[in-house]
Amino acid sequence: MSLGKLYGVSLGPGAEDLMTIRAFNCLKTVDCIAIPRKDEETPSVAWMTAENIIGEVEGQEKLFLDFPMTKNPETLKPAWDIAFKEIRQRLMAGQDVAFITVGDAFIYSTFIYLYNHARKIWPDVEIEVIPGVSSITAVPTVAGIPVADGQQRVAIIPASYNIEDLRTIFKMFDTVILMKVSNVINQIVEALEAENLIDHAVYVAKATMDGEKIVRDLRTIKEKRCIYFSMVIVSRNDRAGILEGNETKILDEVGV
Amino acid sequence: MSLGKLYGVSLGPGAEDLMTIRAFNCLKTVDCIAIPRKDEETPSVAWMTAENIIGEVEGQEKLFLDFPMTKNPETLKPAWDIAFKEIRQRLMAGQDVAFITVGDAFIYSTFIYLYNHARKIWPDVEIEVIPGVSSITAVPTVAGIPVADGQQRVAIIPASYNIEDLRTIFKMFDTVILMKVSNVINQIVEALEAENLIDHAVYVAKATMDGEKIVRDLRTIKEKRCIYFSMVIVSRNDRAGILEGNETKILDEVGV
Repeated sequence: MSLGKLYGVSLGPGAEDLMTIRAFNCLKTVDCIAIPRKDEETPSVAWMTAENIIGEVEGQEKLFLDFPMTKNPETLKPAWDIAFKEIRQRLMAGQDVAFITVGDAFIYSTFIYLYNHARKIWPDVEIEVIPGVSSITAVPTVAGIPVADGQQRVAIIPASYNIEDLRTIFKMFDTVILMKVSNVINQIVEALEAENLIDHAVYVAKATMDGEKIVRDLRTIKEKRCIYFSMVIVSRNDRAGILEGNETKILDEVGV
Repeated sequence: MSLGKLYGVSLGPGAEDLMTIRAFNCLKTVDCIAIPRKDEETPSVAWMTAENIIGEVEGQEKLFLDFPMTKNPETLKPAWDIAFKEIRQRLMAGQDVAFITVGDAFIYSTFIYLYNHARKIWPDVEIEVIPGVSSITAVPTVAGIPVADGQQRVAIIPASYNIEDLRTIFKMFDTVILMKVSNVINQIVEALEAENLIDHAVYVAKATMDGEKIVRDLRTIKEKRCIYFSMVIVSRNDRAGILEGNETKILDEVGV
C-alpha cells in the first residue's frame, strides 16, 4: 500500500473566506483533518476558522490533537509523541492527512515542528505545504497601514523574547511588526515613546476574527494585559515609494 | 448617486488557486477590474494570475492601466494621472472598482500608492483591502524553509536599494528575505560567503508560477543575471522552536 500524503494547510488569519481556494479544495477532499487544540475543553481556533466553510465531509475523520500551552519541553514531548503516532498510523494506512494551522503554516506555527521532524523521520512521506494569508499582512490591512513600499525594510519580531534591543530595531527598520505582544506591551510602549514613535504604532488583536480590536493610541493600553492573537505594527513611513514626496505636484485635478 | 467602492485585491503569489475565497468572490461580482500592466504589448502578470479562474463576467469591465517600469517620477506621474482619472470616473458613477495586484496588496505593490492618495483626495470613497498570500510566505513554502519559529526574527529587505549593511542584517536576524534580487545577486553572494551563510541560502524565481525555479547553490548563479519575481531566503535556523535541540531525545519510536 502506498503511503498517504501529509499536508500543512494554512487557513489564513481567521476570517473563513480568507482561506485560499487551494486550502479549501484540500480540506474538502482529504481523508483526515488533523486539528491542533489546547485541550479537550477548549475549542480549536484553527477548526473554528474552517468549520463553517468545510462542514461535514462524508468519510472524513477529524483528528483532534492536544498541545498544552507551554514552553516546557517535558510537557510538550508526550503531546508530540501522541501526535506523531496518530498521524503516522493514518499515513501508513495510505490516508492523506491535512494538519491545519491559523495564519501561515511556515510562520510561528505548530506545523513547523511537525514538518521538520517528519522530513527527518519519514523521508518517504510526501509533504505539501499550502501557504496562506499571514497575520503579517492581514493585521496591516485591518489597521490601514501598508507594510512596505519602495525602499522600506520590515522586521518581524516575536516580542515575548529578548526585546532589549527594540530601540535599535526601531531605528533600523521602516516597519516593525511585533508578534505576541500580550505580556510585554508596557515595554513596547516605553520603547516607542523613547523613540518618538508612539503615534506611528497601532495595536491590533484578533484581526479579521470575531472580536477584532484596533487601538490607535497605545498609551491607553499601557497598564492592561492584552489578549492572544495580538500584534503591534510600527510604521515610520519616511522612505516610501517612488512618487511619495511628489504628491503636492500631482493629482490636484482628480479629487472627488 | 452613491459613490462606488474601491477594492485592493491581493491575488497571491501567482498560482490561481492561491487566491483567497474573498478575492475570488469580489472579482466575480465587481463592476470593474482595474488591471495594472507595463504597456499595451506586455500581458499583465496580475491578470494572467486571475484570468482563467475568473473568466468572463457579464457586464464587467476590464480597465487596463499602463504603468511604465521606471523609478522616474516624471514618467510615472502621467500614468498615475490617467489611472486616478479613469478610476474616479467609475467610482463617481457608482461602480465598484477592484484594483488587482500579485502577492499582497500592502507589500511592495502598485496598489499602495493608489491607496494612500485615494484616502487623501477621495475621503468619501470606501476602500477595502483584501489581503493575500505574499511571496514572503509562498517562496519559503516552495523552498521548504520555514520562515520563523519560536524566538526567530525575520528581516525583509528590498535588495535593490542600499544593501551595504547586508552583513550586519545577516548577523542580527535568523531569517532574511531579500526581495528583487535580480541586479544585485553578486553582491548578495559575496555577503553570504563572507558570513559563511552561502549554504543557508536559497534562490527562488517565479514561486508557484509557470517557470518556477529553485537554486540551492547560489554560487552557480554568481555571474548570471536573474529574472524578475526572484527572491533569496537566508535561514540560519539556530534558535528555532521549543523542542528543537531535544530532537535526539524524542520521537525515536515513531519513524516510518
